Amino acid sequence: MLKVGIVGGTGYTGVELLRLLSTHAEAEVVMITSRAEEGVGVDELFPSLRGAMDLRFSTPDVKSLATCDVVFFATPHNVAMNMVPELLAAGTRIIDLSADFRITDADLWSKWYHEKHVCPDVLATAVYGLPERNLEKIRNAKLIACPGCYPTAVQLGLIPLLEEKLVDPSRLIVSAASGVSGAGRQAKIDNLFTELSESFKAYGVGGHRHLPEIEQELALAAKGPVGLTFTPHLLPQVRGIHATMYAEMLDPAVPLDEVQFLFEKRYADAPFVDVMPLGSTPQTRTVRGSNMCRIALHRPQNRDTIVVLSAIDNLVKGASGQAIQNMNLMFGLPETMGLQGLALMP
Amino acid sequence: MLKVGIVGGTGYTGVELLRLLSTHAEAEVVMITSRAEEGVGVDELFPSLRGAMDLRFSTPDVKSLATCDVVFFATPHNVAMNMVPELLAAGTRIIDLSADFRITDADLWSKWYHEKHVCPDVLATAVYGLPERNLEKIRNAKLIACPGCYPTAVQLGLIPLLEEKLVDPSRLIVSAASGVSGAGRQAKIDNLFTELSESFKAYGVGGHRHLPEIEQELALAAKGPVGLTFTPHLLPQVRGIHATMYAEMLDPAVPLDEVQFLFEKRYADAPFVDVMPLGSTPQTRTVRGSNMCRIALHRPQNRDTIVVLSAIDNLVKGASGQAIQNMNLMFGLPETMGLQGLALMP
Amino acid sequence: MLKVGIVGGTGYTGVELLRLLSTHAEAEVVMITSRAEEGVGVDELFPSLRGAMDLRFSTPDVKSLATCDVVFFATPHNVAMNMVPELLAAGTRIIDLSADFRITDADLWSKWYHEKHVCPDVLATAVYGLPERNLEKIRNAKLIACPGCYPTAVQLGLIPLLEEKLVDPSRLIVSAASGVSGAGRQAKIDNLFTELSESFKAYGVGGHRHLPEIEQELALAAKGPVGLTFTPHLLPQVRGIHATMYAEMLDPAVPLDEVQFLFEKRYADAPFVDVMPLGSTPQTRTVRGSNMCRIALHRPQNRDTIVVLSAIDNLVKGASGQAIQNMNLMFGLPETMGLQGLALMP
Amino acid sequence: MLKVGIVGGTGYTGVELLRLLSTHAEAEVVMITSRAEEGVGVDELFPSLRGAMDLRFSTPDVKSLATCDVVFFATPHNVAMNMVPELLAAGTRIIDLSADFRITDADLWSKWYHEKHVCPDVLATAVYGLPERNLEKIRNAKLIACPGCYPTAVQLGLIPLLEEKLVDPSRLIVSAASGVSGAGRQAKIDNLFTELSESFKAYGVGGHRHLPEIEQELALAAKGPVGLTFTPHLLPQVRGIHATMYAEMLDPAVPLDEVQFLFEKRYADAPFVDVMPLGSTPQTRTVRGSNMCRIALHRPQNRDTIVVLSAIDNLVKGASGQAIQNMNLMFGLPETMGLQGLALMP
Repeated sequence: MLKVGIVGGTGYTGVELLRLLSTHAEAEVVMITSRAEEGVGVDELFPSLRGAMDLRFSTPDVKSLATCDVVFFATPHNVAMNMVPELLAAGTRIIDLSADFRITDADLWSKWYHEKHVCPDVLATAVYGLPERNLEKIRNAKLIACPGCYPTAVQLGLIPLLEEKLVDPSRLIVSAASGVSGAGRQAKIDNLFTELSESFKAYGVGGHRHLPEIEQELALAAKGPVGLTFTPHLLPQVRGIHATMYAEMLDPAVPLDEVQFLFEKRYADAPFVDVMPLGSTPQTRTVRGSNMCRIALHRPQNRDTIVVLSAIDNLVKGASGQAIQNMNLMFGLPETMGLQGLALMP
Repeated sequence: MLKVGIVGGTGYTGVELLRLLSTHAEAEVVMITSRAEEGVGVDELFPSLRGAMDLRFSTPDVKSLATCDVVFFATPHNVAMNMVPELLAAGTRIIDLSADFRITDADLWSKWYHEKHVCPDVLATAVYGLPERNLEKIRNAKLIACPGCYPTAVQLGLIPLLEEKLVDPSRLIVSAASGVSGAGRQAKIDNLFTELSESFKAYGVGGHRHLPEIEQELALAAKGPVGLTFTPHLLPQVRGIHATMYAEMLDPAVPLDEVQFLFEKRYADAPFVDVMPLGSTPQTRTVRGSNMCRIALHRPQNRDTIVVLSAIDNLVKGASGQAIQNMNLMFGLPETMGLQGLALMP
Repeated sequence: MLKVGIVGGTGYTGVELLRLLSTHAEAEVVMITSRAEEGVGVDELFPSLRGAMDLRFSTPDVKSLATCDVVFFATPHNVAMNMVPELLAAGTRIIDLSADFRITDADLWSKWYHEKHVCPDVLATAVYGLPERNLEKIRNAKLIACPGCYPTAVQLGLIPLLEEKLVDPSRLIVSAASGVSGAGRQAKIDNLFTELSESFKAYGVGGHRHLPEIEQELALAAKGPVGLTFTPHLLPQVRGIHATMYAEMLDPAVPLDEVQFLFEKRYADAPFVDVMPLGSTPQTRTVRGSNMCRIALHRPQNRDTIVVLSAIDNLVKGASGQAIQNMNLMFGLPETMGLQGLALMP
Repeated sequence: MLKVGIVGGTGYTGVELLRLLSTHAEAEVVMITSRAEEGVGVDELFPSLRGAMDLRFSTPDVKSLATCDVVFFATPHNVAMNMVPELLAAGTRIIDLSADFRITDADLWSKWYHEKHVCPDVLATAVYGLPERNLEKIRNAKLIACPGCYPTAVQLGLIPLLEEKLVDPSRLIVSAASGVSGAGRQAKIDNLFTELSESFKAYGVGGHRHLPEIEQELALAAKGPVGLTFTPHLLPQVRGIHATMYAEMLDPAVPLDEVQFLFEKRYADAPFVDVMPLGSTPQTRTVRGSNMCRIALHRPQNRDTIVVLSAIDNLVKGASGQAIQNMNLMFGLPETMGLQGLALMP
């Protein structure tokens, strides 16, 4: 039984880790921290846990956390990087759901996150935790940088096209939309029910922090620079990310059937990527609460632009589920353990 | 491994049975019927099942169904009663999620469902499948009438008061509200998103079919006649039932603490009833996707009226989850098997 | 043209006053105050006003406000009572949408609002602004205490029954539900989209501040004490209040038709009360954005309990629309001026 | 007072025409038709109209309709084209909200609507009713083809770029999203609350009927052929269309300020187009119930792709409001008459 610690358990990725781990056969949460809620039972904050979990928030303390086999950081950025070096030194493995170790260039990180990275040397050892790209590295990793929610949905949709050099990497366009839980559990006017219900808008059009992360990883897949216009939008729903991706075919003579076949082959061994039949349109509700990413391909009017659609649950495959998928791989467990619950539909 | 058949699998209680049974360790769905969708894969109708279930809808046929250990009817009323006698004769056990066997008086049934009951003799053998009232009978039952969604929420909230004769049984008032999934998966104008979103209304005020069912069962708990005014409402949400129940204390000198204690004792062995601390207000989202019923007690202004609040997921504890709870009991399995998933929150 | 000032215009009742007054033929908003947003254009905070309103928030200042013919207070409680005496002295008429002048007993007010009332003498001169009860008093009022949202929906549903002594005033039960905009525009975790969407709960069961207000006014209608159990609930929608009211008939021989007739007669001259045909169930969306209150009567199973349903838009008839209705009456304008827009449906 | 007839008044554009015309100073609805609802009061079908409108549905009859000054067709396609020739001959002016007269090439129309156009000669006389492009033609038109909802949002966002030849017309990409009311008031499983709530998906990716309409009109603005990839999506909300449009600048040296200036100039006289300040992101709720289109420009990372965002209410500027705007222009009334109501927010 793996002993699991969670730092920063009062947000939505925290409670989602608790939900998913509550039925995991080989892992047990032994510690969950929150400075603000110290001493409070997790089921007081999240009544959905009543009767299932007998854990209280404690103040984060590296020494105690170091007794865990693995520690998840479900914190805002700038928390993990201050604790990770010491925990690694103690032999604890780390899965960071925040942005601290996602961008390998410390200067680029600083530009987007407006502060200095405190441990660029450790940063260099982090493995980007997208199992569909980095399976073997993850198995051996000490420190996982869990991908962002948008980056997960976008990469799974575009990497087969870029790896196979099927499309122009310099003109990628992604219009993506997220449920509100992506904004976290913060008391802000902008996140009120009354401000978001029955409405839709773009945000971060000029530059969202997930852009450099996506470009970095797509460039690795493309083995060369990529240019991406990325527009996130906010949906009047709690969970779900949907990405609509546009790419121009380099050779318009390649039929869509062939692209479909390449996607199916690419993901044949990926338990959490579902390449749907041609003509499908993935709905976010078909992945709500599940770790699945559903993908569908289109080529409108048989013109030169390929449209890839992908859907994930931002809190599961886009965060806590993917984190557990990484944990399973790191500790030699079956990749799908604890992650086989189906989507809640309707 | 129990062989499970499902009749009428194209509705929401059908897909919910599939979701819950997909991770059940001792039961496997071997057959699911639908005349209209014969030959169609269940995952074509419900893409949430893609990759997890390799089953096709077949035309309902009593001979084939009789090869199952247990058959669930997830049908509108007036289907089960036409097939159940033959299946029972073949030794198959039945869990009927419809209304056909809930009301023990065949004439009363006819009055509310506007047709003759075709097998009143079988009706007399049905066990009302509320485990918190009928645990032992369920263990030995051949035919279970699974309670309606409102009746489940209301009974769990009121039976301790009535069993203990704490309140006036002749003046019960229940104001309850349901998510839209309670109306089923039917193409009706009234159920459109555009007709229900951002709105709330009462319905069936003059007489809802769950009223005689509730009164029948509450009378058994009270060991005497009860009078109930029951007003259902429709919520702009998919899942969840919430009941607000008003009852007048027979002896106002009994303090609320004592009532709370009686509730806690009454449900001490019920794994799916959560009596929350005094002052709580159960939210439907804390049971979304789970088989739990959460209950809280209030006595406003310390006057003579007790207010009981209860919340369930209408598709789980109010239908498919409770059906599986019954199956577990009928076949000697742990009561909670396959039902331990936590609510999806947020 | 009436010169209108608004104190506290950054909340939802503030922007609703602006929306409604923007098309009012005889009133013009000349001043709107907010300490926090001083200098900011109203259309910066509320882009729905872009192109229609050229007003900036200013710091509240009694001298400037006193140049208005009428000042609306769209503030939390405990603001109006500190400014009203001076404004009244200057001859400005006041319509207070907050709770400061609703409860005539200053001690009772203090008990529920946890502070001392600063001007009990002025309190004694306030007129409770429910036009369907106090039409003539409102015409001559200097200071209007605009009713709360729940109190409006409940009183309109119950006063005909109490005025006519048709029901037992000591056993009234009201189960009411409100859209989230009733909680105002405050940055609180509890009001986040992620905390409220797809969920329903009761709140304030032990005692909501609208209870003493409702009991006070119902007692006036009943000409004697009343006893009310009042349970508010929170709906996953922005606008709308729905009240389900239960009352026991004193003389069960009175047929429902007759009660219906009494309601129709009682509200024959009330332009904003719609007594719907027997058997109707008012939906909140049929009054969304409008000043109408729709009411329907039921007598389930022909037993002794009458069920009255009422629906209003909490921000219109429950706040800003009713405030303007009061203004119209105070200044001799047609009661419906500026309030004839129909509900937005769907 | 204009005498107005409405054909097909039982859908959402029909009731929206009634709502908007109920406060129009110079137009009165004298006739509304529906075969299915003949004899039924409009306020029975739409209780929001109770007390405001005393009209019953009648069977459509060209002779009676010909007594109107103007007839709106709020019907599915293939109704108007069968009645319009006779009505025009009788001197009645027509505003068709359906697709029958939008596409000028009758063969192209047939290809997308799968039937023959019955009056290609009349088609040639129709004026495309986008006032921001065809103001003068509309003033003199006998027959208006009211633009589709997506086409309105997309054209208003792209025509300044194309008219000024600022972008490559062959590589336009539009990712747009609509509220569910765009699907009409039809009893289909796909439109149920339970199928759409808390979910998002693309649809019609391979080819939506609005594509040829948009390409036809954009080509006129560009004075040359355009190539558009258009992806519609379905939002879990009732009203609102949002379009996110991507275009490549022909001369990257042109600064965004200059483009912004061109947009502001282009729409200086358009009362229903709001060019928001640079950096804005229009929310659909800021136009809910109003005839406004809000537009904002972005140039992410200062690269070569311009992103234009636009938001309208699909039932107002995307249908019934724009139809009334056309009527005002056709009859020499102020363009904004009856359309000055502000958006309902929140």
